[in-house]
Amino acid sequence: MYDLLKGLTVVEGSAFIAGPTCGLYLAQLGARVIRFDNIGGGPDFRRWPLAPGGASLYWEGLNKGKQSVAIDLSRPEGRDLAQRLAAAPGPDAGLFVTNFPAAGFLSYDALRALRQDLICVRVMGWADEGPGVDYTINSAVGVPLMTGHPDDGRPVNHVLPAWDLLTGAFAAFNLVAALINRHRTGQGREIRIPLSDVAASALANMGMTAEILAGAGERPRQGNTLFGAFGRDFLTRDGKRLMVVAITPRQWTGLIEVLGVGEAVAAVESARGVDFRKDEGLRYAHADALMPIFEAGFARADSAALLPRFDELGVCWGPYQTLSEALEDPRLFKDNPIFTELTQVSGARYPVAGYAATLPQDERRPPTPAPALGAHTEAVLADLLGLDGGEIARLHDAGVVASAGT
Amino acid sequence: MYDLLKGLTVVEGSAFIAGPTCGLYLAQLGARVIRFDNIGGGPDFRRWPLAPGGASLYWEGLNKGKQSVAIDLSRPEGRDLAQRLAAAPGPDAGLFVTNFPAAGFLSYDALRALRQDLICVRVMGWADEGPGVDYTINSAVGVPLMTGHPDDGRPVNHVLPAWDLLTGAFAAFNLVAALINRHRTGQGREIRIPLSDVAASALANMGMTAEILAGAGERPRQGNTLFGAFGRDFLTRDGKRLMVVAITPRQWTGLIEVLGVGEAVAAVESARGVDFRKDEGLRYAHADALMPIFEAGFARADSAALLPRFDELGVCWGPYQTLSEALEDPRLFKDNPIFTELTQVSGARYPVAGYAATLPQDERRPPTPAPALGAHTEAVLADLLGLDGGEIARLHDAGVVASAGT
Repeated sequence: MYDLLKGLTVVEGSAFIAGPTCGLYLAQLGARVIRFDNIGGGPDFRRWPLAPGGASLYWEGLNKGKQSVAIDLSRPEGRDLAQRLAAAPGPDAGLFVTNFPAAGFLSYDALRALRQDLICVRVMGWADEGPGVDYTINSAVGVPLMTGHPDDGRPVNHVLPAWDLLTGAFAAFNLVAALINRHRTGQGREIRIPLSDVAASALANMGMTAEILAGAGERPRQGNTLFGAFGRDFLTRDGKRLMVVAITPRQWTGLIEVLGVGEAVAAVESARGVDFRKDEGLRYAHADALMPIFEAGFARADSAALLPRFDELGVCWGPYQTLSEALEDPRLFKDNPIFTELTQVSGARYPVAGYAATLPQDERRPPTPAPALGAHTEAVLADLLGLDGGEIARLHDAGVVASAGT
Repeated sequence: MYDLLKGLTVVEGSAFIAGPTCGLYLAQLGARVIRFDNIGGGPDFRRWPLAPGGASLYWEGLNKGKQSVAIDLSRPEGRDLAQRLAAAPGPDAGLFVTNFPAAGFLSYDALRALRQDLICVRVMGWADEGPGVDYTINSAVGVPLMTGHPDDGRPVNHVLPAWDLLTGAFAAFNLVAALINRHRTGQGREIRIPLSDVAASALANMGMTAEILAGAGERPRQGNTLFGAFGRDFLTRDGKRLMVVAITPRQWTGLIEVLGVGEAVAAVESARGVDFRKDEGLRYAHADALMPIFEAGFARADSAALLPRFDELGVCWGPYQTLSEALEDPRLFKDNPIFTELTQVSGARYPVAGYAATLPQDERRPPTPAPALGAHTEAVLADLLGLDGGEIARLHDAGVVASAGT
């Protein structure tokens, strides 16, 4: 955690990945992030994977360092409280992240009536508010039909909810950009972020739609080969599978040198009248001639000898390893200083991820656990909304709000 | 495009996807984003896919609406200019996005000597500066070994550079967060964003590492089935493949009603003593009994009758379609108002993506093309660095800088 956004108060009324990730990033930069949930938990409160005691490891991972308010959102009085939290007063509050429907009780119009300069970032499935999640949008934009090995025609879904994660970071960017604008102009606004538009624009930004419109046709599935460049998985003599990518001239020449395939590659260049060193696209276009040379080069080499040489010469490679194996990888998890072992709200103790960026001029503070559901109900109602003790007790007794452990 | 960040001047010295995406988002919100490249183009200038005329559709997609300065970065005088651009003066300048090495001529120390409050967002491969790209990091964190069908043990790389895209949005968030802090404190800072830490923390935030550490073991590959919830691909009687996800009670009951499998599902609930309506995890845990019921339900149904009913009842589904087919989908591309047809710098004319978010209170401006390489060299040196005409002419004649078309 860092203090860049200390002083901000953000309210999160969201579930699943995108909205909670947005709130997590803000909390990790020091904002006070208050999440409200239905009493008993929202739709993501019991999402798998689960801790041995039954609590959600997913929920506690995405809600680290936030405050929790529990409200009965089915009742008018609870909905009124949620609206007032979203539109909370203060110069660096009135910042709301949600995936609630655009037309419901958390509509921008309803909230703006309470605070004119409210900033509301709303994550959506489809832009027209039709139901959509990462996996149904992903199949619609064509990615599973491009993924996988060419000898198997079945579509392959991604297991990483890439559109959700991207949307979460993009939402955090939009919220802070809107705050910069509000500081200047005094104006708030709603920002709607549909997964469908995030996905469609990302593919277009990388030239993939223009490629088809330019007549190149559908991009074929090609296993683990990187499109348009030199990159693929290879097997060493001792059976290690490595992902190897050569983009820069240094990576390319280093790879050739370590594998000892310089003469064979030069023969292809000479026969075909090309210079692979200067143009990664040519390495892709002439893969039919190049790949067998590299396959043979890897098949002759033992990884124990190969990998130190790769590192010495700046070759870009990665192992194929399971996540269990990755947990033992010092650079990823085991000795990674962004991780801190702590006891989470589930009661499980394990290394927890801190902020993904590192700020060398600032001190990194360790991550803090997720809250128990409702742990901050009373404190938030008192200091953010200014409710007095009697009013809070009444709401509590009436079952409109709940505290942790009740 | 929108005007939220109008008035900001951001300099981008970066290549590939993450850094340029960060700059693109900033430009789409109205910032002046000045990209410098080596004369003749950086390592991503000719990256596939290519337009019929040979220009990169990838490059022009990621650099829309930016300004371009071309500099010979191999020469000391060129490097000096790049440093001065990165540290450009002005209250809302001194904002630099890069993937250049942390220890090179664009190190934070070198740049801070020119501007004490510089904000520098640096995208990296590995946190220790080892070479790494999306695909080599992805294999190292274990995703390809979780991806694909259980009857095929080969790892499956993703075709979507998800870590690059996520890092790009995260970089944009960090830059504006640091600017908010600079407005308050006067302090700048370097922010290092390694793909390796973005990937490791994202998996941890979703509970995937805790799951293993809690003793659940490696998550098995399970084709197109969504982990921990109800989601999978199904085939209808007419051979349409659909991705279907049921998370909320409404999605679940709607799906059951349309398929007419209520009795069969109730029989499983009764036999096993569970209530699927309230707990998506149970739907996953009892997939052995549930999936055959749903498979049979889909196999009895024709998509023409099924899909309107799904939409009526709020069932969450997506088609499997190719990207070519998606281009004809009115909600994704064909009639999507975020796209505008324009002639890009390659000379190709096609629908180009605008900003992925929609701000209902603001007017959306159409996207603008990518610049020709060096199109703004003279203007930027004059108005950002204050060089006079004679000095610019001298740099030009000496080959330190170049303009478009030279």
